Amino acid sequence: MTSPLRLGIAGLGTVGAGVLRILQEHPEMLAARAGREITVTAVSARSRGKDRGVALDGYAWEDDAVALARRDDVDVLVELIGGDEGPAKDAVEAALAAGKDVVTANKALLAIHGQALAETAEAAGRVIRFEAAVAGGIPVVKALTEGLAGNEIARVMGVMNGTCNYILTRMEEAGLTYDEAFAEADGLGFLEADPTLDVGGIDAGHKLALLSAIAFGTKVDFEGVELEGIGAVTIEDIRQAADMGYRIKLLGVAQLTGRGLEQRMSPCLVPATSPLGQLQGGTNMVVLEGDAVGQIVLRGAGAGAGPTASAVMADVLDLARGLRLPVFGQPAAGLVAARAARAAIPAPYYLRLALTDKPGALARVAGVLGEAGISIHRMRQYEHGGGTAPVLIVTHRTTRGALEEAFAALPGTRVVQGEPVAIRIEEV
Amino acid sequence: MTSPLRLGIAGLGTVGAGVLRILQEHPEMLAARAGREITVTAVSARSRGKDRGVALDGYAWEDDAVALARRDDVDVLVELIGGDEGPAKDAVEAALAAGKDVVTANKALLAIHGQALAETAEAAGRVIRFEAAVAGGIPVVKALTEGLAGNEIARVMGVMNGTCNYILTRMEEAGLTYDEAFAEADGLGFLEADPTLDVGGIDAGHKLALLSAIAFGTKVDFEGVELEGIGAVTIEDIRQAADMGYRIKLLGVAQLTGRGLEQRMSPCLVPATSPLGQLQGGTNMVVLEGDAVGQIVLRGAGAGAGPTASAVMADVLDLARGLRLPVFGQPAAGLVAARAARAAIPAPYYLRLALTDKPGALARVAGVLGEAGISIHRMRQYEHGGGTAPVLIVTHRTTRGALEEAFAALPGTRVVQGEPVAIRIEEV
Repeated sequence: MTSPLRLGIAGLGTVGAGVLRILQEHPEMLAARAGREITVTAVSARSRGKDRGVALDGYAWEDDAVALARRDDVDVLVELIGGDEGPAKDAVEAALAAGKDVVTANKALLAIHGQALAETAEAAGRVIRFEAAVAGGIPVVKALTEGLAGNEIARVMGVMNGTCNYILTRMEEAGLTYDEAFAEADGLGFLEADPTLDVGGIDAGHKLALLSAIAFGTKVDFEGVELEGIGAVTIEDIRQAADMGYRIKLLGVAQLTGRGLEQRMSPCLVPATSPLGQLQGGTNMVVLEGDAVGQIVLRGAGAGAGPTASAVMADVLDLARGLRLPVFGQPAAGLVAARAARAAIPAPYYLRLALTDKPGALARVAGVLGEAGISIHRMRQYEHGGGTAPVLIVTHRTTRGALEEAFAALPGTRVVQGEPVAIRIEEV
Repeated sequence: MTSPLRLGIAGLGTVGAGVLRILQEHPEMLAARAGREITVTAVSARSRGKDRGVALDGYAWEDDAVALARRDDVDVLVELIGGDEGPAKDAVEAALAAGKDVVTANKALLAIHGQALAETAEAAGRVIRFEAAVAGGIPVVKALTEGLAGNEIARVMGVMNGTCNYILTRMEEAGLTYDEAFAEADGLGFLEADPTLDVGGIDAGHKLALLSAIAFGTKVDFEGVELEGIGAVTIEDIRQAADMGYRIKLLGVAQLTGRGLEQRMSPCLVPATSPLGQLQGGTNMVVLEGDAVGQIVLRGAGAGAGPTASAVMADVLDLARGLRLPVFGQPAAGLVAARAARAAIPAPYYLRLALTDKPGALARVAGVLGEAGISIHRMRQYEHGGGTAPVLIVTHRTTRGALEEAFAALPGTRVVQGEPVAIRIEEV
């Protein structure tokens, strides 16, 4: 056996405690798999005295994560502090400068500074690993970087924020409004301190940006993710989508097109019978499509101490076993900028309009859609009180440009009340 | 960049041609990911002249796979011949003896000779990789060996023979008998030359034995897999299981218990709403359960040129990138023999009996079950002609021993016609 791999763990929240628990419970199993011992030299967190349900005896303590990262007796910094600036970034940079490898669960840090950090790491011959940053316990970074490395990737999709999926599932199952489901998720402690990270799609957008870089050999480009949260999804849309055979998910989609890389994180309709449509509650799912392999679906817990610690440990074991890859699977210096001017891949859309109850109203709407080049695949009109009737339309594939043209012309028909709703239907 | 990795490919069936196609279509992408060129030095197959839809120009030809494996200008033997004896085994042994690494898709070879081959490889400092041997394009060997390396694995389950799943799906969807669905699968070319490899569960059993070794650190033990094929599954059971909310799958399950390793490959009932239950057609699914990560589900194409070639290329890229692991994730010399005397983990069971239409018949059956310690969770009795009525029973958890005791006592009731059917319900 070679010498032990010595960890310094910065951040002792639930994930940090989970990592320590695995290391303390399974030292022989881990050593057998790694071919060497894995030890913890030192730990660091904000508050030393706090009870974390896990023993810290035998580990040196550092108040300062940067000091931890620089210790001579640490081979790998395990960064579990979080946040895209401050001590997390400082500690990662200090570790790389001091010639240490880094394992991190920090999606925000890498989504925003990933390109610069990867270039720094690779220039120094160091490695940054981040399996835990994307979809919790699902080994999707590994599946994409290594398992599907023989494939030209066509599309990456994912439901990667369990809180959003929980809220949408509760709205459908229990008939809650968005606000009620949000309050329930909050009460269960599912929401980030800043809930817009969850429901605004930012957290999931960070994850998508990281997967895109690996999948397409492009620079991490979180700014290029078209973000739309779930705050505008209504119980009516959930019910009526279900009526048409769909479920609404906060779905991330990344595709490399002739015009560049499109990345979207937005509510989408998916067929209720598809694996994505069947994903209920807080679970995550990632769908990877390659030219040779076809479609691979990965499903598992996207958050929580155990699953996230499992992913951290996968990275630690890879380092212990001597696996050293560029951060995004190929040298960072060779990654290209490829943002598409605007997401434009055609798709079918679900439209919901409130129609005034006048003869010929539907014909006028259909006429407007037709003039914009939008053809109708399916349509339902419901009876309703109050002088308006909801109309649901599923279009054939069309573009957002065509939809905008049609929506601009709809007020002129004088039969549509309020704002029409349009939600993309992702063909899975 | 370091020097190219030079492949020798033995076997040019659909998978071999698929591998060549990837290498020919994506040389730059593969080199960027591998950090070096990947080249093919020589190929070998039975018939040189056959049109395989892929150019062989520029590759040396060997009639003999062993000669290919020994070539000085080959770094890695890619063995795609198949079969657990003969040229496949000879070529792999020759490659290891000549100091080459091996990538293989050969589940039979490794399920039967894996322990010896792994010991040989590791003694020589060589590596055997076999992602393509299990569940086609799904990167499950990697997920288990590396992605979940921080977990003590509790259970591995899988639907890993697409042909069996196709037959069972067609029986349910189209109301075909087993023989009709078998004939349809045969007509579509889905069956192995020896169909008992598929429908007898042997092929899937090979795969389960390989996953068990990785999951539990045990010697590959195909002989220890309790095999039961799908030939005895009837359309009645499929329909009536559906009526109780279940689907029947040829399911592999491996668990390490206090009594040793249990491996079963047999028709099981799973809830129709579970990921395994929703898997229809020829797709594969593997479910991995770890103490930290919880449940991870992987789904994808289990066969076919593209998916299998994708898995072969993942192994080739790992070798090109310098990843070198023991064959089963930890040194073969340290793997333990752990076969349980007999699978004995309790489970609920689905029972189907034909009851004569006499007063008190059901009470007598319930009495026999109760005396064997089997308690009934749900029961349905159907009207039927011919003097007997089918009765379906879902038991609470019980053992096979208790079932055997009850079945031995059933004839004494003189109200049960024919052989009762018992199918395990796997709790997923």
